[in-house]
Amino acid sequence: MFKSLMMDDYQLTLVQLLERLGTYFPDNDVVTRLADGTIHRYTYRDCYNRSHQLSNALRRLGVKEGDRVGTLGWNTFRHMEAYLAIPTMGAVLHTLNLRLHPHDLAYIADHAGDSVIIADRSLLPLLEQFKGEVKSLRHVIVMPDDGPTPEGYLDYEQLIAGESTDFAYPDIDERSAAAMCYTSGTTGHPKGVVYGHRSSVLHSLTAALPDALGLSERDRVLPVVPMFHANAWSLPYGAALTGASMIFPGPVLQPPVLLDLMAAEKVTIAAGVPTIWNGVLALLDQDASKWDISALRYMLVGGSAAPPAMIEGFKKRHGLDMVHAWGMTEMSPIGSLARVKNKELDAGPEVALGRRASQGYAVPFVDTRHVDDAGTVLPWDGQTMGELEVRGPWVAATYYNNDEQADRFTPDGWFKTGDIVTIDSEGYITITDRSKDVIKSGGEWISTVALENAIMAHPAIMEAAVFAARHPKWDERPLAAVVFKPGQEATKDELNAFLEKDFAKFWLPDDYLVVPEIPKTSVGKFQKIRLREEYGEYLMKGN
Amino acid sequence: MFKSLMMDDYQLTLVQLLERLGTYFPDNDVVTRLADGTIHRYTYRDCYNRSHQLSNALRRLGVKEGDRVGTLGWNTFRHMEAYLAIPTMGAVLHTLNLRLHPHDLAYIADHAGDSVIIADRSLLPLLEQFKGEVKSLRHVIVMPDDGPTPEGYLDYEQLIAGESTDFAYPDIDERSAAAMCYTSGTTGHPKGVVYGHRSSVLHSLTAALPDALGLSERDRVLPVVPMFHANAWSLPYGAALTGASMIFPGPVLQPPVLLDLMAAEKVTIAAGVPTIWNGVLALLDQDASKWDISALRYMLVGGSAAPPAMIEGFKKRHGLDMVHAWGMTEMSPIGSLARVKNKELDAGPEVALGRRASQGYAVPFVDTRHVDDAGTVLPWDGQTMGELEVRGPWVAATYYNNDEQADRFTPDGWFKTGDIVTIDSEGYITITDRSKDVIKSGGEWISTVALENAIMAHPAIMEAAVFAARHPKWDERPLAAVVFKPGQEATKDELNAFLEKDFAKFWLPDDYLVVPEIPKTSVGKFQKIRLREEYGEYLMKGN
Repeated sequence: MFKSLMMDDYQLTLVQLLERLGTYFPDNDVVTRLADGTIHRYTYRDCYNRSHQLSNALRRLGVKEGDRVGTLGWNTFRHMEAYLAIPTMGAVLHTLNLRLHPHDLAYIADHAGDSVIIADRSLLPLLEQFKGEVKSLRHVIVMPDDGPTPEGYLDYEQLIAGESTDFAYPDIDERSAAAMCYTSGTTGHPKGVVYGHRSSVLHSLTAALPDALGLSERDRVLPVVPMFHANAWSLPYGAALTGASMIFPGPVLQPPVLLDLMAAEKVTIAAGVPTIWNGVLALLDQDASKWDISALRYMLVGGSAAPPAMIEGFKKRHGLDMVHAWGMTEMSPIGSLARVKNKELDAGPEVALGRRASQGYAVPFVDTRHVDDAGTVLPWDGQTMGELEVRGPWVAATYYNNDEQADRFTPDGWFKTGDIVTIDSEGYITITDRSKDVIKSGGEWISTVALENAIMAHPAIMEAAVFAARHPKWDERPLAAVVFKPGQEATKDELNAFLEKDFAKFWLPDDYLVVPEIPKTSVGKFQKIRLREEYGEYLMKGN
Repeated sequence: MFKSLMMDDYQLTLVQLLERLGTYFPDNDVVTRLADGTIHRYTYRDCYNRSHQLSNALRRLGVKEGDRVGTLGWNTFRHMEAYLAIPTMGAVLHTLNLRLHPHDLAYIADHAGDSVIIADRSLLPLLEQFKGEVKSLRHVIVMPDDGPTPEGYLDYEQLIAGESTDFAYPDIDERSAAAMCYTSGTTGHPKGVVYGHRSSVLHSLTAALPDALGLSERDRVLPVVPMFHANAWSLPYGAALTGASMIFPGPVLQPPVLLDLMAAEKVTIAAGVPTIWNGVLALLDQDASKWDISALRYMLVGGSAAPPAMIEGFKKRHGLDMVHAWGMTEMSPIGSLARVKNKELDAGPEVALGRRASQGYAVPFVDTRHVDDAGTVLPWDGQTMGELEVRGPWVAATYYNNDEQADRFTPDGWFKTGDIVTIDSEGYITITDRSKDVIKSGGEWISTVALENAIMAHPAIMEAAVFAARHPKWDERPLAAVVFKPGQEATKDELNAFLEKDFAKFWLPDDYLVVPEIPKTSVGKFQKIRLREEYGEYLMKGN
């Protein structure tokens, strides 16, 4: 091999990001809305210094390189400090999902081998339900978010108070672990993804590109997406890389609170799941004049597919741009973004909406293909459905100590996403289903996502989920669970008439079940398995 | 080590950039102004296909992995194809500087071991002066830029015409060489820098960030900077990464031609050395109404320090932004960019100009420090001068087969840039001199760059270079070589009076020598050694 003579042994680590923040952007601010509604504000200088203090304190507690340190917290400045301190001392940041059942949390923290857990005081009642089962746990550190730390616990502030603001980083190999996050499917145990320094740096770099998130130190970023949800989509590390200010919403994620924060803090980028933005849109539709959010460049939406009607509603009624992203915990998480390409900028609003409502095209260094049940690679024709497979420097190569899920990784090195998609000639990906949700009716595939998006465009509908119900003749048929907007309703015939123009007749749902709310997972995705459990036999009973 | 479980073996190579261009941006265009003034236009689909054809043709000629393939060409679409094809077939792109003396070119091509050279037809007279001395040379391929390929040479178009547009890439290690570029100092042999796939990818990624070059597929990029000059500042690979259109100026780089091209092609980013932009500014000052260049986002200026008066002139008189960059061939080349930080955006035009005229602050992953003669690291106080040292993933670790220059690399892993700088508390770097140009007068350092910038702000001055002349009492004293604007002049007393407000008296030049032009290097930098050779004894002779 004729070798490169550059500094190829220079390791890509999160240390460089923390150092960048402290060196070049010490005066940019970090804002947190605390549990009591007051605002905490400090600079990256403070954040940098306190991160070093935290590293020193953890080292004093005996945390060594490779040790897992769990966090159980809302989006706050202290959680940001943990994000920065733990990986840069060579330990592994393990974000725990506070929306999971304590039984799952016990499994996850124990399986990861967490030796320390840093938890918000407001979440101690949850922690106390599972910490006894975490055999590796040696210390709990309490972040006093809503009051003083109770007796018997280490207090975060007291712990770091006496520590030096200088910290001697260890030498870190770019292929060592930086963070962990568990993803819980509907079957089997939760699966642990182990992010590395190299993967996190490359992901942050690529995510910050102008045609991806476009992060600048001039941005003020509001991550509504929780920090326990796939690294808050890399925004904390993106901020460290670029110097962008962070606006943390704390525990209260109600639409009026978010809009207040966006207006007061001149937020330029806000990121959250569709459910969050649906609520914000409803509020703006009532009275948009209450908030001046003109600093907003765009809203990032991901976690599950955003309904086109919502994207269009923000744009048409309020002049606000949404950027639709697709990713997975196993992908750090960003895989693709729905940007309209330059060549289609003048193609009109219909084309633009179609592009923006798709999952977009892959970001650099994420290779994509989709395959049929036999593993044959399918054409990019915009029509043929198959399972999406990906590979790239920030895609999981395997799960942590979990053999149940080995079949998610192909022999030739791709990760099977479980998403059923089409890919068009421009590379735009459209998710038509999760592989477990797709409906097979009389041998034909029906996309539940396409139906849901169409139903949610109906003026009477707030939310809709389409799922497979068993059928005596067709094996499976689509049923829709719908939530009406307050004071609105529509009949099955009206709804099907609304859909007929866009879908073949055999795609139309056999019935619409009015429900008070669509069950959702801990990260806001429709939980169709619960609908299937409850209504799966509905058509077998003569309905 | 607790290891990352991501796909850490996924290699970062330029293959991903070429594939991205062909997959996602096939319809974006590539424009070349040919030698005869006509415009050649094609798409990245063509560029991608022809790059594959070139790779196939080179493979057929016997080019193997690691072989060096030289290019001797202007900025054109064919040179872009060579940029893409050669590294992605595992060979090494070696750009030859057509402004060098044939004697140097002979040394460089022979030292690199070029087995093939791809040359513009218009440069054959140059090639023929040195190709006989390149022992490794097996083939010359002629790009017919200004007429048909002469008998006895391989013609580029005929060579690739029959080849497949599919190409089977080899597996490429990210630590293997991708490209070479020689840098010629004033002493010793030219030194070869060997770029790798990893270094080139990381450099392109970082350079494209919003606060660096901010490259988007919506951009139309005009590299006036030659493709033989430090990879044209990474713009070709930046375009491949992002899909930005490229506008190649070909061999004619006169200001009216550049302005015509910028206007006609709606260029958004144009990149060149100060001399180029000085000429453009003079032309705009005469009649700005002739060109509509409103699509221009900014002009990138680098290669040598841009005079503040020029940056201010573009901004004040024409509303045009310059972004000042600093780098070196040994740095791929980008080290820092002069962006105004968010916190100073409202600090007024004076502060902004000061920031923009500095060398800026380092881009991510470039570590900087400056040291005194004893190697002691100096404080970032904006005043203390020392030699700038850098390290990072795209900084050279050593030169290619050259032991003369081993002292450019410190034992603790930094590259000594040879630039004398100050660094302020915000990380802004200001070059005060090349280490070989700094003037030591009575034991005190005098910055030639600071004096030049101040002199060039005088309304009568077109260009000025300050250099050291020997002095019987003070060892060295500054002399200035000046070029007046047409029809203008100024006396020594007038010029010194103009400088007095900003400099200590002992900094003022002992004399001003009126010259027809400042001698420049092959890449447009002031060649002060030639001034010293001619005028170095001036003060010893009683002047």
